[in-house]
Amino acid sequence: MSQQNLRFGVLGVGRIGKIHVENLANRIPGTRITSLSDTVASELAAVAEKYGIARTFADYREVIAHPEVDAVVVCTPTDTHYQILLDAIARGKHIFCEKPVDLSIEKIQIINERAAERGVQLMVGFNRRFDPNFAKVRDVVATGKIGSPQILRITSRDPGPPPEQYVRASGGIFLDMTIHDFDMARFLMGSEVSEVYVRAAVMVDPMFERAGDWDTAITMLTFESGAMGVIDNSRKAVYGYDQRVEVFGSEGMITVTNNTPDNHIFLDRGGVHSALPLNFFMQRYTESYLEEMKAFVDAVVHHKPVPVGGPDGLQATTIALAAAKSAKENRPVKLTEIHERSASSCLAG
Amino acid sequence: MSQQNLRFGVLGVGRIGKIHVENLANRIPGTRITSLSDTVASELAAVAEKYGIARTFADYREVIAHPEVDAVVVCTPTDTHYQILLDAIARGKHIFCEKPVDLSIEKIQIINERAAERGVQLMVGFNRRFDPNFAKVRDVVATGKIGSPQILRITSRDPGPPPEQYVRASGGIFLDMTIHDFDMARFLMGSEVSEVYVRAAVMVDPMFERAGDWDTAITMLTFESGAMGVIDNSRKAVYGYDQRVEVFGSEGMITVTNNTPDNHIFLDRGGVHSALPLNFFMQRYTESYLEEMKAFVDAVVHHKPVPVGGPDGLQATTIALAAAKSAKENRPVKLTEIHERSASSCLAG
Amino acid sequence: MSQQNLRFGVLGVGRIGKIHVENLANRIPGTRITSLSDTVASELAAVAEKYGIARTFADYREVIAHPEVDAVVVCTPTDTHYQILLDAIARGKHIFCEKPVDLSIEKIQIINERAAERGVQLMVGFNRRFDPNFAKVRDVVATGKIGSPQILRITSRDPGPPPEQYVRASGGIFLDMTIHDFDMARFLMGSEVSEVYVRAAVMVDPMFERAGDWDTAITMLTFESGAMGVIDNSRKAVYGYDQRVEVFGSEGMITVTNNTPDNHIFLDRGGVHSALPLNFFMQRYTESYLEEMKAFVDAVVHHKPVPVGGPDGLQATTIALAAAKSAKENRPVKLTEIHERSASSCLAG
Amino acid sequence: MSQQNLRFGVLGVGRIGKIHVENLANRIPGTRITSLSDTVASELAAVAEKYGIARTFADYREVIAHPEVDAVVVCTPTDTHYQILLDAIARGKHIFCEKPVDLSIEKIQIINERAAERGVQLMVGFNRRFDPNFAKVRDVVATGKIGSPQILRITSRDPGPPPEQYVRASGGIFLDMTIHDFDMARFLMGSEVSEVYVRAAVMVDPMFERAGDWDTAITMLTFESGAMGVIDNSRKAVYGYDQRVEVFGSEGMITVTNNTPDNHIFLDRGGVHSALPLNFFMQRYTESYLEEMKAFVDAVVHHKPVPVGGPDGLQATTIALAAAKSAKENRPVKLTEIHERSASSCLAG
Repeated sequence: MSQQNLRFGVLGVGRIGKIHVENLANRIPGTRITSLSDTVASELAAVAEKYGIARTFADYREVIAHPEVDAVVVCTPTDTHYQILLDAIARGKHIFCEKPVDLSIEKIQIINERAAERGVQLMVGFNRRFDPNFAKVRDVVATGKIGSPQILRITSRDPGPPPEQYVRASGGIFLDMTIHDFDMARFLMGSEVSEVYVRAAVMVDPMFERAGDWDTAITMLTFESGAMGVIDNSRKAVYGYDQRVEVFGSEGMITVTNNTPDNHIFLDRGGVHSALPLNFFMQRYTESYLEEMKAFVDAVVHHKPVPVGGPDGLQATTIALAAAKSAKENRPVKLTEIHERSASSCLAG
Repeated sequence: MSQQNLRFGVLGVGRIGKIHVENLANRIPGTRITSLSDTVASELAAVAEKYGIARTFADYREVIAHPEVDAVVVCTPTDTHYQILLDAIARGKHIFCEKPVDLSIEKIQIINERAAERGVQLMVGFNRRFDPNFAKVRDVVATGKIGSPQILRITSRDPGPPPEQYVRASGGIFLDMTIHDFDMARFLMGSEVSEVYVRAAVMVDPMFERAGDWDTAITMLTFESGAMGVIDNSRKAVYGYDQRVEVFGSEGMITVTNNTPDNHIFLDRGGVHSALPLNFFMQRYTESYLEEMKAFVDAVVHHKPVPVGGPDGLQATTIALAAAKSAKENRPVKLTEIHERSASSCLAG
Repeated sequence: MSQQNLRFGVLGVGRIGKIHVENLANRIPGTRITSLSDTVASELAAVAEKYGIARTFADYREVIAHPEVDAVVVCTPTDTHYQILLDAIARGKHIFCEKPVDLSIEKIQIINERAAERGVQLMVGFNRRFDPNFAKVRDVVATGKIGSPQILRITSRDPGPPPEQYVRASGGIFLDMTIHDFDMARFLMGSEVSEVYVRAAVMVDPMFERAGDWDTAITMLTFESGAMGVIDNSRKAVYGYDQRVEVFGSEGMITVTNNTPDNHIFLDRGGVHSALPLNFFMQRYTESYLEEMKAFVDAVVHHKPVPVGGPDGLQATTIALAAAKSAKENRPVKLTEIHERSASSCLAG
Repeated sequence: MSQQNLRFGVLGVGRIGKIHVENLANRIPGTRITSLSDTVASELAAVAEKYGIARTFADYREVIAHPEVDAVVVCTPTDTHYQILLDAIARGKHIFCEKPVDLSIEKIQIINERAAERGVQLMVGFNRRFDPNFAKVRDVVATGKIGSPQILRITSRDPGPPPEQYVRASGGIFLDMTIHDFDMARFLMGSEVSEVYVRAAVMVDPMFERAGDWDTAITMLTFESGAMGVIDNSRKAVYGYDQRVEVFGSEGMITVTNNTPDNHIFLDRGGVHSALPLNFFMQRYTESYLEEMKAFVDAVVHHKPVPVGGPDGLQATTIALAAAKSAKENRPVKLTEIHERSASSCLAG
């Protein structure tokens, strides 16, 4: 099978990079990692040795330039994505890029245009679409079983806040955390968001205030279809990683609960007790990381459209920017406000 | 026990009135219904015969005037409440009044003032507070088990829309339906609502549009404590009466699901199947209707404050008016806007 | 409606008697309690006063003899049932009798014959058949949704052991406790039990050993249909009253779980917690006690067969005797062994 | 790490063999498969190519004899185990053997003795012990959270019967299917089984009768501790692979339900619907197959006792033989009956 020959370079072998390396090396038949890059030499060496990968580089450009690389997986910090993607596109390499593609919608637009011109595949790492629970919800909605979708509810709460340094570089809660939920909203409802209204606050840790960010937010979404949705976020749920969605429609409703490490039920004098939700995103989304990469490989090998492309990255970022604006100004913000601003700044530039 | 002597008059023996008659007659020891009134003679006669109640009147004033009536239960149409309550207060009768007390906050304020001056007990029929599920949620929140409440979620969906005639007289979705959720929000969070933002639409039936109303809404609440909440409503959930709440806090989360007629689980080749939520509010809230009336009796007999009083009715109505305003104007509305308007209209009046 | 005239005498106003009095007096329209008897004068007076019942007697025969009594509810100790039932039958009164009818199958056979000859209705208080959960299971089985029933599982565990005095008079775990499960087994499977095998032990309290009884047992049932079943019993489940059944068949499976006082789910750092099963049989089976009495009233008023008659009482007792024999002899016991013994002792008598 | 050098030979690359090859090759760091054997050349070649394994043999003895093999995984038909294990022990290779080790307890005893004399590790593939659900149950029981274990319930139902040819070679339902449950019973209760009583029947497919086997059984277990247990088996549950256990004790109860492909809940007019249990043992037990092999590797590398050894295989087989005897003779059978028969046949041999 031609898949045998798909050769990968992985850029960045931090937490997420290691997930993709493991999946490509051991879990997805017919792929091979031929080279790695990272700026931290010790990490790079450790990963290369563990997986028997011969070529390692401090400079990502050597990976991109290498003839035995058909596709790259970009897991470097967000502020490096733009240049890396431009370089990879120029070399004609297919790209799997972690979210967010960039914090600027202008730059994402440029990347999307260049990728289209050059004919390279560009997939964005909204892995949650590939989670079996959420995929099932989408499937039920898409096949019409709930009738016309009317109300979407997403609960998305982290088990604990990231470090302050991370928060300061993250672009804020909407671009870093809720962006997954914005993509999920579009995915589940099959309709574009047209307007958002947000209430955000700092309830978890004053650090977020110092960083100019929020840790708690409720976002109301209006879809072009007329449907409505609401997302509630917190940076800290003491009981674990809380990831639930629900879609209500004219003919029914579908909802999913959290995943747990086991399904035991223990009863004693004090009550009925069961397992908390899986606490860590890498355990919670083990399967979705694997499935998204399989889907990317499948798209590249069989010349099919990627299931989550650059325009999806653009839309999610646009909603996130509108959400941040709404939170600051305490008023509903139409997405056209962001598009227009972006369009005018493009013109200005 | 002195409770033996609490004698009731029931005004209005429609759907809700019958529930209260049944509870007072058969389920609450030490109370007696001495008289009934209703404008529909046949209904009145049927209820009186079934429960062996001797005195029936077409005119509620005869019930209120009767010396063998200590307390009245007001189940007449909303637009009659104001005069009835003024009359009952003037006669020194304790009052249990179905929600909403009135659609005008000025009138509710007047009633509250008069009841306080005259020293009569006035309880408002927000029965859901007495449901075992919601009472448990409040208990867990009040005892601090979830820490500081941060996010409230209420889902409140009716099994089907009421008739157009009812809708036209109802005051609209917020005063008729969501008002229960507004009271629930205050009850569960133990904090007053300070601001609301609403998106409302007609998705279920164009009848609502003709009636100048909506059938689907999402309401975002900001509490004085800084906490946030969201309520989603629909007039039609094909799978039954959907009544859920969830409170998320710094130390945990509590949620309740729907009640079902039984807890069977049936598995066949096609899936795992279980019972739909109870479909009708009278079955769903059987216990809460009983418990609220017990609480009223207890308050009157033992001279204790009623658990849900006139000021609670006032607050819920104020939120409902703010919600309707927000829905119309698509902007967040502070409750002080409503209070001020009310204050100024009082002055103007 | 003719039901208006059904006049009851209640014999025995202890724990169970009070349940039936409350239901007949307040919950079942068209019935009236005209007289009560009990050997404890204070109890008798208290109940009579609470419900306004004029005639009370120390001697049950005065109730039975009274012309304003159409039917009697027999809630006296088991060892009094035989004579009371014979007397009531002789007077032509319809009978609702608490389980077990008697500990001797010969006596039950005599009662059944006399009742049939005299044409009085005799219903046995296997109330659990009227529980909404178990009734749903039976309904699903009876309508063929699980195909041919193959395996039955019943878990029946009490929240705590009764007092030693009660145990000594009870006839043992199989006649006192498991008898409900034996009736449930016949009811759910729609087939007679042909053979039992039991392992029984004392694990909860040595008191049971002193009383010549067991507190823990597993009973295996073979049905005439060829199906099989298993019942596990314990006199003490620290987490509450555990009452579950499951029927597995060729086309599916149906199971029911326990009832809880509310359906809250509370999550904190320590786990996911929910409510224990209802702890007390009077709360757990509130609805089934009401429904069984409604069914009795319906059968008497409309001259329909009672849903649980004397032959059902006989069968359950026969299984219980076979179970006790199996537990003692550690071997499978066919029900024909009990029938034959009974038949021969009848002949001998 | 010394684990780096653990070199495996896999004997038999059928359904189960492939699972172990995948785990050893891709999921367990620090192990290597150096050789494979199978009698089906095409299968052997396909697996060898997929995983890049250089040496393949039709004759297992060449794998066992190879100096670059430290341990063997035996996945060949049961009737070949005895000779293979003797050979592997003679060569000093550590052994992971699929269950059952053999259908004869004499042969298992011989193998256990030889392995002990030669000092090789022998682990038996009772993988279910490593399932996160069952491991949690054992953990809760072992730490005393349910107090003293009193009643064990296991439900173990296959999604569909195996082919007749398989059934005829399987040794019967108790040695092929229930043997897993017998091991589970010992594992969960921490006590040996002393007596069994079984009712078995053919309800699923007359093929089982032709093969001299049963397809449905209930097994009652008595443990040396005095506790009791019950296992119900069916060869065909139309709703999927049904694998549940429950342990009831003096201080509480723990139970686990089935695993599902996702946790969606879908509500429409017809009911509440969710996903069926995983249907296939390879999906259901993916994780337990991986974890058991990790445990074997850990035991060999670190010279620790294997968690499931030859004596465990012996005990499970003994219970299975007693169960078959009980089913035939319809009487309780003590395990000492089997041991004695075995001892005497050993002497006779």
